[in-house]
Amino acid sequence: MPNTPDDDKRIDAIRFLSVDAVQKANSGHPGMPLGAAAAAYALWTRHLRFDPSDPQWFDRDRFVLSAGHASMLLYSLLYLNGYDLSLDDLRAFRSFGSKTPGHPESHLTPGVDATTGPLGQGISNAVGMAIAEAHLGATYNRARTIVDHRTWVMASDGDLMEGVSSETASLAGHLGLGKLIVLYDDNKVTLSAGTEATFTEDVLARYEAYGWHTQRVAAGNDVDAIDAALTGAANETHRPSLVVVRSHIGFGSPVQDTFKAHGEPLGAEGVARTKTALGWPLEPTFYVPDDVLAWWRENGRRGTALRAQWQTTYNGWSSDEPELAAQLERARAAKLPERIDWPHFDAENGNLATRDAGAAAINAVAQSLPELFGGSADLDPSTKTNLKGDGDFQPGTYAGRNVHFGVREHAMGAIANGIAYHGGLLPFTATFLQFLDYMKPAVRLAALSELRVIFIYTHDSIFLGEDGPTHQPIEHIAQLRATPNVAVIRPADALETVAAWQCAIASPSQPVALILTRQKVPFLGAREADVARGAYVVFGDESEPEVILIATGSEVSLAIDAAKLLEARGTKTRVVSMPCWEYFAAQDRTYRDRILPPHVGTRVSIEAAATFGWERWIGERGIALGIDRFGASAPAAALADYFGFTPAHVAEVAAGLLARA
Amino acid sequence: MPNTPDDDKRIDAIRFLSVDAVQKANSGHPGMPLGAAAAAYALWTRHLRFDPSDPQWFDRDRFVLSAGHASMLLYSLLYLNGYDLSLDDLRAFRSFGSKTPGHPESHLTPGVDATTGPLGQGISNAVGMAIAEAHLGATYNRARTIVDHRTWVMASDGDLMEGVSSETASLAGHLGLGKLIVLYDDNKVTLSAGTEATFTEDVLARYEAYGWHTQRVAAGNDVDAIDAALTGAANETHRPSLVVVRSHIGFGSPVQDTFKAHGEPLGAEGVARTKTALGWPLEPTFYVPDDVLAWWRENGRRGTALRAQWQTTYNGWSSDEPELAAQLERARAAKLPERIDWPHFDAENGNLATRDAGAAAINAVAQSLPELFGGSADLDPSTKTNLKGDGDFQPGTYAGRNVHFGVREHAMGAIANGIAYHGGLLPFTATFLQFLDYMKPAVRLAALSELRVIFIYTHDSIFLGEDGPTHQPIEHIAQLRATPNVAVIRPADALETVAAWQCAIASPSQPVALILTRQKVPFLGAREADVARGAYVVFGDESEPEVILIATGSEVSLAIDAAKLLEARGTKTRVVSMPCWEYFAAQDRTYRDRILPPHVGTRVSIEAAATFGWERWIGERGIALGIDRFGASAPAAALADYFGFTPAHVAEVAAGLLARA
Repeated sequence: MPNTPDDDKRIDAIRFLSVDAVQKANSGHPGMPLGAAAAAYALWTRHLRFDPSDPQWFDRDRFVLSAGHASMLLYSLLYLNGYDLSLDDLRAFRSFGSKTPGHPESHLTPGVDATTGPLGQGISNAVGMAIAEAHLGATYNRARTIVDHRTWVMASDGDLMEGVSSETASLAGHLGLGKLIVLYDDNKVTLSAGTEATFTEDVLARYEAYGWHTQRVAAGNDVDAIDAALTGAANETHRPSLVVVRSHIGFGSPVQDTFKAHGEPLGAEGVARTKTALGWPLEPTFYVPDDVLAWWRENGRRGTALRAQWQTTYNGWSSDEPELAAQLERARAAKLPERIDWPHFDAENGNLATRDAGAAAINAVAQSLPELFGGSADLDPSTKTNLKGDGDFQPGTYAGRNVHFGVREHAMGAIANGIAYHGGLLPFTATFLQFLDYMKPAVRLAALSELRVIFIYTHDSIFLGEDGPTHQPIEHIAQLRATPNVAVIRPADALETVAAWQCAIASPSQPVALILTRQKVPFLGAREADVARGAYVVFGDESEPEVILIATGSEVSLAIDAAKLLEARGTKTRVVSMPCWEYFAAQDRTYRDRILPPHVGTRVSIEAAATFGWERWIGERGIALGIDRFGASAPAAALADYFGFTPAHVAEVAAGLLARA
Repeated sequence: MPNTPDDDKRIDAIRFLSVDAVQKANSGHPGMPLGAAAAAYALWTRHLRFDPSDPQWFDRDRFVLSAGHASMLLYSLLYLNGYDLSLDDLRAFRSFGSKTPGHPESHLTPGVDATTGPLGQGISNAVGMAIAEAHLGATYNRARTIVDHRTWVMASDGDLMEGVSSETASLAGHLGLGKLIVLYDDNKVTLSAGTEATFTEDVLARYEAYGWHTQRVAAGNDVDAIDAALTGAANETHRPSLVVVRSHIGFGSPVQDTFKAHGEPLGAEGVARTKTALGWPLEPTFYVPDDVLAWWRENGRRGTALRAQWQTTYNGWSSDEPELAAQLERARAAKLPERIDWPHFDAENGNLATRDAGAAAINAVAQSLPELFGGSADLDPSTKTNLKGDGDFQPGTYAGRNVHFGVREHAMGAIANGIAYHGGLLPFTATFLQFLDYMKPAVRLAALSELRVIFIYTHDSIFLGEDGPTHQPIEHIAQLRATPNVAVIRPADALETVAAWQCAIASPSQPVALILTRQKVPFLGAREADVARGAYVVFGDESEPEVILIATGSEVSLAIDAAKLLEARGTKTRVVSMPCWEYFAAQDRTYRDRILPPHVGTRVSIEAAATFGWERWIGERGIALGIDRFGASAPAAALADYFGFTPAHVAEVAAGLLARA
């Protein structure tokens, strides 16, 4: 059946708001909004459960525009349906300070469920959202069902080419996430060419191999056909669904079906010709006929009724299950329980790797925070992040909290972000620090979108030993520190590890990276391990030192041993443990100057990693002891000798510096 | 047919050299060498063309152990076949300075064709090797064929789970790389669990969807069955081949078929029980019966004959085609031609983005260096890296030099590494700087393995503008600078861009990252743009300045404008262009002190990126102007105002600093 004229007008309203905004900004991507508007219409008017008056409605369907460059498609939908996004906001597309940036940013714009743009991320976040939904449903649904919604994605060929989406699709198929539905806008054109130049695989067959349900819609403007496929996808409850919709990039424009439609404005003439071709008035711009807008707004209000219905159910559930309700509401608000039974460490514990102290801490957190949820990329025997006594998140056991991501670090990061976007859970991930590289795009988006995620990285230096330079991080701590809005915490011993975890769970909008050792480190004594302030004096009294040794993580005990050698020679030495640069930099000057007195320039930093950036703390007279080359495969003790991470060498360097001062 | 007893003895020799080495090192991975030895035997004795006496034989088959943790499997094969790797080298497995590190490193060990360990990389490098072979064959084969070899891979489940291998497999299928053959050691066990916990997709169907030829071998110790499948794969010339071999991790050991066999030594008792089970003498360790060793060595010598045969062909070809031969030999030696017609830039060219100057430079290089070969991740209209007048590398046109990687940055990086490993070509890649994150694992391995690769990154700052923070790099330059053995060059104008390219093509064992602007920048005047020294004075005379402004890339012209304002106020100002920290740091102290006189502490660095690390050059009295937050979606001019990248603001900061000094 052809679309009704009313359908087409409503679809064209999406198209021309988008085209006009791109034209006004003189920047943006008109091609996909023109080509995918009909599919979006079918989804947003016949399937998606959402309430523009409450963008955070907990049981709404999630919608992820994985092809974030088509941002105007989403902004147009938000405006038409009555979200808090005005026509002026659309007019301000891509201008400074607007709610309509070039690519959607979830923390800026109501109704945007995920920050997208870097391809492959959104579709992978959506897997995380579907995992969150499955887990929360298994955890909280009782006689009444309060968590039961779908996650819908619109994705492009680029999303499906990126490896991260392959990783997450494989895992989604394994997990049987039946409420995840991906619309693939198959327009056969990428930024630079037709897909025949690069992407000729059989996408449906690939997704079937992953265990997905797949369908194909031949005509991307056929609303009923798309609707029918979406219904088919929704009815499939045990497998994720892929709906491939053959569309035409830049539909109706002079550059339809060419890569020129992808990423630049159509130009005044192109806009005019497109409007003419589709029978839309040339003027005014940003025009939506009154009846069309009224219809769209009514469409939005249907969701308000749905939400009211749900709220009634929720209220009943809440009365039935007051403890569960309190727990869920606390978790959704990212608040902590009153009491957490943290593990106690003292000298009795002997030498302990911080990954092992971390195992005790994460299990303490898990006991008190049922919202803690996550796992490792096939490394939990090494990262020690298994939540003991808790089950696995697997098909049939969605209440389990241990997620097995497989050898898929990037998927793990993007899924954790999706879980955080969803709300109601506190996600964590774990792998070796070296493999941060595999998941950096996701860590960056967590930071940009101000997500509450805990990224655990163990095996944090060359002292992992024999596995060698392919597995030994060097530049990774610097990479994380250089990234905005990440708290990077590298605790020195078991006490600092617990304090690091305390900081991590309390961090509301800054992801935290916990950097932990493989090897054992000594307990540094009973004390207030002031991780929250970023740095504190761990050795030496309050009086002014001649030398300051600044160290992090496993090198703090080394610094203390070196300090003892220096003190034995009569050199007054202070050791500063600096587990978190970001927290320390955020302290007031008085505190910072108390820890690092400005006129004591004889400073040595000690960190078994790139020295890059350490000048910030040691000043121009200091020396940074680190490793500015790749490591080597050898037992840790041999590496310590070779790279000079011994008390004698550190003391010698400090003494030499003092002699020159 | 069951294996002959002789076959089994030769296979067991691989197994027990590996097991003994892991046991002696008390560290390593015995599981895969035990499980995959028979497959390796079938490949190395019946298919692989190699010559232990010339590990760099140009037309040898390439062998990539993508599952690098099984390094002892490879080292055992190298020793048995007579490579320059002794029994003492095996005994030194994983000890400091040995040729047998924990994971194979190509620059350390003869016979190791690729550095592997981070999963997914090796199998992806192999796609690059097969691309190189296809291109070199199309380029150099004439009446005589001098390039005609296969690329063989042994991969594990982890390799197939990593997204990068999905990207490269899709591209390999598209490109029809018929000489690429992957053996998948399907042992059903990962580090932490059985694959049923994470990896239940239909792998064969997935690879078929990519356009691969696939086969399954049910019995991983059945040499004839594996041999037959490898023959089938070799006979398939138009599609890459996947051979799935069902094997048993830790075969013969007490921990067979469990994840305990994966990554730790068997223990003395476990070794003894395994040897007993397979009928191998308990003592001595590292035992290979004389007849078995003799047989293996003879196997190695067969390759010497093959190479001699090839050399005859090559000599004939070389006589027929002296110019081609000279070109190939020059390219293989990483030598440059005597003359390159570099583009000339002067003020006449007006403002020019460095990506556009880069387009002129790369095309000049392409004219003179037929070995230049590469492309972009679907961004060449933006990165401007198309080699004009040169064809596309596509099925049927393998002589083309423009590779279309699709939206697959990680694949691009790993494939470029594979091309570099192969030899004979100079690979380049291109994408936006922000998407470095997607390919960082490959960049790191290029640096570790000392590969000659040019990584081009355009859209190098927030000044790409409206696309917003998801696309605006902040921490990325710092990330690259913190990584060992990468030259990071950010040229200021067209002249520096050409000089940067001159450095890039001359860099023999250090990959180069070229960081280029999207936006136009002014021509800074005719001068010697001393990029090779890393930094030079671009404004101000030789006498001592009061203020030094240090800038890179697009901020150099801004610094000069600010300097002019300061000079107008009577402040003697020097502007240092510092396109490459690594090159500058490598200069002698005299040169460095001439550029940055130590007693001039009034320094301001200006770079539209994270300030992280700049203290190294500005000292403790300086100020780093940068961006330590995420960017914003807006036109570049609005961003410049907001973030203070204007001449007036820079001059004000410098003047304020001087006033306080």
